Amino acid sequence: MPSRNPFTEPEQREPIEGDFFAQEVNLANRNHGIALEMLRHDVTPIGMHYLLIHFDVPYVTEADAASWRLEVGGLVERPVSLSLEDIKALPSKTLRVTLECAGNGRGRFKPRMPSMPWLLGAVGTAEWTGTPLRNVLDLAGIKPDAVELSCHGIDRGFDRGNEHEYGRSLRPEMARHEDVMLVWAMNGQPLLPQHGYPLRMIVPGWYGMASVKWLNRIEALASPYQGYQQVGTYHFRTQANERGTPITTMRVKSLMVPPGVPDWYSGARLVEAGPVTIHGRAWSGAATPIDHVEICIDGVWHRAALEAPAGPYAWRGWRFDWEATPGSYAMACRATDAAGNTQPLEAAYDRGGFGNNGLHRIEVFVR
Amino acid sequence: MPSRNPFTEPEQREPIEGDFFAQEVNLANRNHGIALEMLRHDVTPIGMHYLLIHFDVPYVTEADAASWRLEVGGLVERPVSLSLEDIKALPSKTLRVTLECAGNGRGRFKPRMPSMPWLLGAVGTAEWTGTPLRNVLDLAGIKPDAVELSCHGIDRGFDRGNEHEYGRSLRPEMARHEDVMLVWAMNGQPLLPQHGYPLRMIVPGWYGMASVKWLNRIEALASPYQGYQQVGTYHFRTQANERGTPITTMRVKSLMVPPGVPDWYSGARLVEAGPVTIHGRAWSGAATPIDHVEICIDGVWHRAALEAPAGPYAWRGWRFDWEATPGSYAMACRATDAAGNTQPLEAAYDRGGFGNNGLHRIEVFVR
Repeated sequence: MPSRNPFTEPEQREPIEGDFFAQEVNLANRNHGIALEMLRHDVTPIGMHYLLIHFDVPYVTEADAASWRLEVGGLVERPVSLSLEDIKALPSKTLRVTLECAGNGRGRFKPRMPSMPWLLGAVGTAEWTGTPLRNVLDLAGIKPDAVELSCHGIDRGFDRGNEHEYGRSLRPEMARHEDVMLVWAMNGQPLLPQHGYPLRMIVPGWYGMASVKWLNRIEALASPYQGYQQVGTYHFRTQANERGTPITTMRVKSLMVPPGVPDWYSGARLVEAGPVTIHGRAWSGAATPIDHVEICIDGVWHRAALEAPAGPYAWRGWRFDWEATPGSYAMACRATDAAGNTQPLEAAYDRGGFGNNGLHRIEVFVR
Repeated sequence: MPSRNPFTEPEQREPIEGDFFAQEVNLANRNHGIALEMLRHDVTPIGMHYLLIHFDVPYVTEADAASWRLEVGGLVERPVSLSLEDIKALPSKTLRVTLECAGNGRGRFKPRMPSMPWLLGAVGTAEWTGTPLRNVLDLAGIKPDAVELSCHGIDRGFDRGNEHEYGRSLRPEMARHEDVMLVWAMNGQPLLPQHGYPLRMIVPGWYGMASVKWLNRIEALASPYQGYQQVGTYHFRTQANERGTPITTMRVKSLMVPPGVPDWYSGARLVEAGPVTIHGRAWSGAATPIDHVEICIDGVWHRAALEAPAGPYAWRGWRFDWEATPGSYAMACRATDAAGNTQPLEAAYDRGGFGNNGLHRIEVFVR
């Protein structure tokens, strides 16, 4: 017997506590995060970058890509329709960018919204090759009365009864930032289907929801975009039906490569006594440099050494040399950016599960 | 306060029912399956192939790969130590192979063992390039009294208190099968770190546990290998402490690309009325061809059309043209192989959650 039709009678999801629902596990089977030990890599190997796919990955063949068009319309001087070849002929550059899903850490909130139950791994760093979006906008000529540009993918579906193609908007001045990109390559290879082939946006410094995949349409609007992914979700809220605060740049955050070797099920770590180097990464949005990273071992905070920066939008490597002696240890790390933002011990509650930059804590046993 | 030390006091995990534990969700954040719509691709795009990583992905640099050795010892005429260059100089070939995790579907068993809670997606198909393992074995000369060859990766950790490097064994006649391979490339690219860089095995037709990653050692043994991954797990068992049946070849199975568009949280599908082509894949282990695939819509079974085969170890594409009319539908698919094996409606219970080839069922709403 079929269940309630979620398209005509959308579920009323409310925050929950305790064990995880099968729907959450289904989303965790589909979407994937980085295995934390892979934070050792400056650039995340292909396939280990986190993926959050709202609907289905569109099936786009090479023939589909050959006839792909990006349409720019609305409040423009000249509506344009560009092929991938047209776009690739524009001046190009490559940027190293760390992207994090705004919902990273959702599964760690108590209570948590039933959705993709990210714990820590929804982050990755890639080298993206493309052209600044403004090169395309300039071809169309955005009229001065445009207040937002909405950017649309071809991926389509429902969320809480709202039927839509994935879409997000940017203000014209943001869309014209020199590092907001239209990209066709990732780590030197054509985009993978699941990363937006053949064309996507990259909005460096912002959480990943702004970097629209499978992009085929941009509209210059006379009033703010009201799409579900812009106003229905991706806001910081503590109450249902609250207007909330739009989510934009990534909060300061750090993660560790857990030292030693794991226990399969518990994830606890066993370390051999002696000198141990603990590696990690730290980042903050809006091109704010990391100022320092601290690591707490057994209640004592230590300053970690920062590795050389790798560009304004890439995470910063850090390391700490530890002399491990037998026993059990609680560890945590904490980053502070140049604007003085520090990670909180526990993130402020968010109803949708967004922006959780509470400390990464691990348990280590030394023998 | 640290919890119980799982290295000295291993957990006694027992099968459970109901919602999922945080440890299961943690494993589902790390390991990933294919998004089912990606079954449209004959060869799974890089990064969408399923991944089951028992311990940590080893951090292997290019310099580490340059000094990598594969040691072959034990009951051999001449112990050998081979570099990657030595191995790549042997005759090579490329095979298209479908691999499935033996634990695929674990999360669908009731009760289920708490572990990686796979639902459906732990499968993928890749083009693997390497040399038959026997070319290396022949360099060493396996003595006739060797009864098994144990194959070891460098990945290390604990499972239920057993400390070990990942290892599996094969009988000499199986290890010498012309299609059991040592591979260094996947889909025409060097192996990704998470897929076993710089060297791994591929045992076509078998569940994935046999295809040891990060391979650096092979031992010819006078008695059967007793490693944890060989005898402690990867057996079909219904009771604790039962000896069980070793898991080898993949059971016959089929999956659908869910038609239409999804609802984000429930995963239910909305289809527009009219002609709809339903695509899917079917496979069976040990190079057994698929004989036929059926699809059930609203209680009626139909025969699907098979696409051309793509080699003895690759899944078989299938499709069914459906005239969708408004309403709600339960769908399921079922494959039968040339040996007469058919998927069961529900898989026989397995305590460890292995070999679940029960039907893939979906719910579709047509408007």
